[in-house]
Amino acid sequence: MIIMEAGATQEEINFVIQEITRYGLRADVSKGEYKTIIGLVGDERKIPFPHFGSLPGVKEAIPVETPYKLISREYSRFFEAPTEDRIINVGKINIGHNEPVYIAGPCAVESQDQVMRIAEEVKKAGAHVLRGGIFKPRSSVHSFQGLGAKDWKNAEEALKWLHTAGKNYDMPVVTEVRGENQVDLIAEFADILQIGARNMYDQDLLTAVARKKKPVLFKRHFGAGVEEFLSFAEYIAAEGNKDIILCERGIVPVGKGKNYTRYNLDLGAVPAIKKETFLPIIVDPSHAMGRRDLIFNMSCAAVAAGAMGLMIEVHYNPKEALVDAAQMITPPELEKVIKACNNIFDVIRAQ
Amino acid sequence: MIIMEAGATQEEINFVIQEITRYGLRADVSKGEYKTIIGLVGDERKIPFPHFGSLPGVKEAIPVETPYKLISREYSRFFEAPTEDRIINVGKINIGHNEPVYIAGPCAVESQDQVMRIAEEVKKAGAHVLRGGIFKPRSSVHSFQGLGAKDWKNAEEALKWLHTAGKNYDMPVVTEVRGENQVDLIAEFADILQIGARNMYDQDLLTAVARKKKPVLFKRHFGAGVEEFLSFAEYIAAEGNKDIILCERGIVPVGKGKNYTRYNLDLGAVPAIKKETFLPIIVDPSHAMGRRDLIFNMSCAAVAAGAMGLMIEVHYNPKEALVDAAQMITPPELEKVIKACNNIFDVIRAQ
Amino acid sequence: MIIMEAGATQEEINFVIQEITRYGLRADVSKGEYKTIIGLVGDERKIPFPHFGSLPGVKEAIPVETPYKLISREYSRFFEAPTEDRIINVGKINIGHNEPVYIAGPCAVESQDQVMRIAEEVKKAGAHVLRGGIFKPRSSVHSFQGLGAKDWKNAEEALKWLHTAGKNYDMPVVTEVRGENQVDLIAEFADILQIGARNMYDQDLLTAVARKKKPVLFKRHFGAGVEEFLSFAEYIAAEGNKDIILCERGIVPVGKGKNYTRYNLDLGAVPAIKKETFLPIIVDPSHAMGRRDLIFNMSCAAVAAGAMGLMIEVHYNPKEALVDAAQMITPPELEKVIKACNNIFDVIRAQ
Amino acid sequence: MIIMEAGATQEEINFVIQEITRYGLRADVSKGEYKTIIGLVGDERKIPFPHFGSLPGVKEAIPVETPYKLISREYSRFFEAPTEDRIINVGKINIGHNEPVYIAGPCAVESQDQVMRIAEEVKKAGAHVLRGGIFKPRSSVHSFQGLGAKDWKNAEEALKWLHTAGKNYDMPVVTEVRGENQVDLIAEFADILQIGARNMYDQDLLTAVARKKKPVLFKRHFGAGVEEFLSFAEYIAAEGNKDIILCERGIVPVGKGKNYTRYNLDLGAVPAIKKETFLPIIVDPSHAMGRRDLIFNMSCAAVAAGAMGLMIEVHYNPKEALVDAAQMITPPELEKVIKACNNIFDVIRAQ
Repeated sequence: MIIMEAGATQEEINFVIQEITRYGLRADVSKGEYKTIIGLVGDERKIPFPHFGSLPGVKEAIPVETPYKLISREYSRFFEAPTEDRIINVGKINIGHNEPVYIAGPCAVESQDQVMRIAEEVKKAGAHVLRGGIFKPRSSVHSFQGLGAKDWKNAEEALKWLHTAGKNYDMPVVTEVRGENQVDLIAEFADILQIGARNMYDQDLLTAVARKKKPVLFKRHFGAGVEEFLSFAEYIAAEGNKDIILCERGIVPVGKGKNYTRYNLDLGAVPAIKKETFLPIIVDPSHAMGRRDLIFNMSCAAVAAGAMGLMIEVHYNPKEALVDAAQMITPPELEKVIKACNNIFDVIRAQ
Repeated sequence: MIIMEAGATQEEINFVIQEITRYGLRADVSKGEYKTIIGLVGDERKIPFPHFGSLPGVKEAIPVETPYKLISREYSRFFEAPTEDRIINVGKINIGHNEPVYIAGPCAVESQDQVMRIAEEVKKAGAHVLRGGIFKPRSSVHSFQGLGAKDWKNAEEALKWLHTAGKNYDMPVVTEVRGENQVDLIAEFADILQIGARNMYDQDLLTAVARKKKPVLFKRHFGAGVEEFLSFAEYIAAEGNKDIILCERGIVPVGKGKNYTRYNLDLGAVPAIKKETFLPIIVDPSHAMGRRDLIFNMSCAAVAAGAMGLMIEVHYNPKEALVDAAQMITPPELEKVIKACNNIFDVIRAQ
Repeated sequence: MIIMEAGATQEEINFVIQEITRYGLRADVSKGEYKTIIGLVGDERKIPFPHFGSLPGVKEAIPVETPYKLISREYSRFFEAPTEDRIINVGKINIGHNEPVYIAGPCAVESQDQVMRIAEEVKKAGAHVLRGGIFKPRSSVHSFQGLGAKDWKNAEEALKWLHTAGKNYDMPVVTEVRGENQVDLIAEFADILQIGARNMYDQDLLTAVARKKKPVLFKRHFGAGVEEFLSFAEYIAAEGNKDIILCERGIVPVGKGKNYTRYNLDLGAVPAIKKETFLPIIVDPSHAMGRRDLIFNMSCAAVAAGAMGLMIEVHYNPKEALVDAAQMITPPELEKVIKACNNIFDVIRAQ
Repeated sequence: MIIMEAGATQEEINFVIQEITRYGLRADVSKGEYKTIIGLVGDERKIPFPHFGSLPGVKEAIPVETPYKLISREYSRFFEAPTEDRIINVGKINIGHNEPVYIAGPCAVESQDQVMRIAEEVKKAGAHVLRGGIFKPRSSVHSFQGLGAKDWKNAEEALKWLHTAGKNYDMPVVTEVRGENQVDLIAEFADILQIGARNMYDQDLLTAVARKKKPVLFKRHFGAGVEEFLSFAEYIAAEGNKDIILCERGIVPVGKGKNYTRYNLDLGAVPAIKKETFLPIIVDPSHAMGRRDLIFNMSCAAVAAGAMGLMIEVHYNPKEALVDAAQMITPPELEKVIKACNNIFDVIRAQ
């Protein structure tokens, strides 16, 4: 809808109406005490709002329809979308159903022994899905970039280790796809394809991954609002793939002076997102906090906020890990987290 | 400590050492491969760090000691502070002990009947402390500012209603002090004095309130980092008053595009703050969310994160409330919140 | 205006209309392809928008009128406000007119000699108004708080020094009022009353200061959006005092990882604010940057962005200053800044 | 350097020293009044700081060396980097030298006529480099994505139009590379390869683009701090390509309530970055503001802040543009911007 300025002239109003017609919609004019408001009847997606916002006499041009209709609860009746929570099947696991799903494993796959041992231990602790990074996004060009960085052959080998570890311990596996060139290779070995926070805006990657028709674990960028996060999930849905697991993992810290966590875990987004979409949402407390001593509390808080699962970095010997050692917990600690979270889930559901 | 630039000259290093000595400390020089670092031996509070940071050849001047020593766990051994969690007694209530404390009531006191009826109903629902605003901080000069705004006599009357309601239903009462001139009057009737988020930086108010020697409920500003929040709590402690209840209530939303909550509830700050200080911390989900449909989940999440209590706005008929109607829950909803939170508290404590 | 959800029922629409009528306005219903929008005819200030936003079937409730009508260019025709830029006279100085105004002086008044010498030197450098802090807001309770902090008599003496220095060198003086109790005393000696960034939300202080009928220098809080900044300036205007000088001084830094300035100077707000209000806006680069080596460029940038003046901290020997030494420039540096800024102002005005 | 907690035991200190040795560095212990600090002698890049930060007894582990040594002024003497401002030659244009460089053109290439006409007009207005998007990053999957989005052949054709337009009017051309798969094709036709803000963190793309040995226009992500921005520029430099043009284009808006610009242009970063690196930095006011009426002022402000150039979106008929119509200016407006900016550049340089 178009809000005119308090002093807009009739000519300016007429020009806006004419422009709306030019874009194939109908204008619905309503005059208030100071201001005229012009509603849009028709397909709002045809309207370039910033253009209208910059026309003479216009104060604001505001879209009133959701930019993520395909995954929206509100529009589901119009777009043949499910009205109930979507349940995503991966092997024997149902994500978004009845109980929280726990995704655990090392930050980076470092060796066959490492990933096999961690798989065994997280399975025992109660995990459902195995995670492990092959291609690691890093802030410094001088840091360890994951085995995948060295060459293509190493990447394939590491993927096989991960795949085998998952198979041996009966867990689907998830790993991050960092660029379009990696999609084919990773889709061969992984059950769930992860798009990391830094790649949330990479629409080519989103499209390429979506076309593999495998479930996608889609992380919110640390500079993205909720509306924008869902608008980019729409890129995946637009390819006909609605097996999208949303993941909150912290946004940029804000405020004068130091905070004591790496990112700001936006748990309020969890129940807010559940009102907007039928897709399941999980939380990654490991990257958000960046310190292992807060993982227990923040895992519990995530489930209490309504998260349908957690993604946690685990290592039998955190000090040894080559990447993100400070935020890893051990398998026994994971077991405690899972037990407490399951209890909290029951408390929440009982309401 | 002072970090010199990679190319700092010996003259520049000497000048820094000389300056350190001038401020009464001793310099401890340590040469690395590229850089020289100069440690400070003595009372760091005497050092103006930005001044040192701007000396020639200096890259950075970093304080290594905590700016909130009086309330710090780390420094407690040096400053005769308790090493255990502080428990704050208000009447029969012990805040920070054994079970979460629930502070509930209307956003604003509107009439004697209103506050009396809400007191009765929140008490029945399980609340421990009654809240109610007399002086309301508002964003628009044209909005209802609380009964206190009209004149001093109205304020006193409203305070008496609140006080009597608390007495009748055996609950201590808390209300916000918005300026120094209100301190004496409010301290006569309130058991806990609240400093609102917008006044967190108002050091004159902090000092005046602290001197009343009553417990202080101290809210984090929505633009303040954790370190800064604790540094301002130190203003209260510096008056010899350590009965400080910290309160997280959301920070400014960030990120491109819309979020769907009024503020960003920073629950990661809760366990992080508990590592730093022995003071109890509670959470106000009402102002953080600004919408009642998220209060249940975010209350549970707060307790799961480690909060020792909640502050929640309650009204028997939210639609009627003159201020913040959208975020109020009803007494029966409060009862559900309290039951679930108590259960979650038990789950957390069992670990 | 009220935007209904795509699936809102007729009952829900009717209830909203009924509520609008109850608040004394008229509803103007307009049906789109998916959504119904309900316009409000009448005085929008009577409407509690969050309340409407939480009614069943409502997606969003958006005010369409400006919350700062009294200082708004847009509404000036309806509210007898000037349609041209407001010019504020202080002694012989006209702020907002023909040339940028330069406010300079020490961060804190430290001694009579100090303020007298700085007054002389900044006057020679081209400054129009003398600044100097008596009551200093500080982050740490252990730092120097300004001479005013010690006792009332010291404050008065320091104010007299400032006043005399201004008189001797023919400059009006400005100093910060940090609390209501200081208003009377400071108004006796200062020509312009400053409300600091940390007190932007302190509506009692705003009202008390506004009533002195002296020009007010009003700083934006570092956590405030532009709309909120102007809404609080409206508190001053609501007292009949429109001699308000707005001041941008930086907002909280944001973004993952370190930035290299103390705050984020939001220069885009300068021309944006000039479109919204007829009040003059100036910029304080000293607090925003926190480092003297960026003051020259950022002063020039501020004037290029459209600022009608600058507020700069100056000391003949920055290293000696007790507060904010790192960001002070010397009088000769100030002279360079003023010359360059005047030239830039001419370039901008020539367009 | 490692800062130990105030109460750290000798065993904890010894363990840290042992760990430092294990990573091949030498520990330099210095004891203060409350705290022990352990310096690191050797190559700091070998140290996993978060790991050290999580060791028992450690308060903080802080890197003291710059993570972007290859492009750093400070380290230039050790890494054979130039100590003077880097000048980047593209055809006859020298970026970073003597006068600001103006990059102008349409947001998106829409037709051969459009790009040819705009090229002619921006050249006449004084532009040096022609810009035009082939692959457009967009927030909504339902918006126009650039001609490149349809198919590869369209992309190639649009690139040829851009290339020819540049050649006809004697301007090098720049266009955005949005994914690794586009690098080869675009490098054939473009003189400067642009990495957009959304891709700043895409290290695979950075590496692939860097290897083309053409100048790279590298935009800061809207969620990135300055240190992080420079750390990712280091990925390009690490491939031996130091022809990097940094570009500030606005960061996420922050603060309670509405701001009136699309992003927050961080002009303070401009002079701050010039202190850190010898690479040239330019500013894109078009995307930052999102509204054409602020472009003139913010262009001038950018040059006053020290920017060595501007990137501006221009269209002969902004209303017609398919993408970002609201922020485009016309060629005559560009001419005014360029004239004013050149004058301001002279004012700044004269100091």
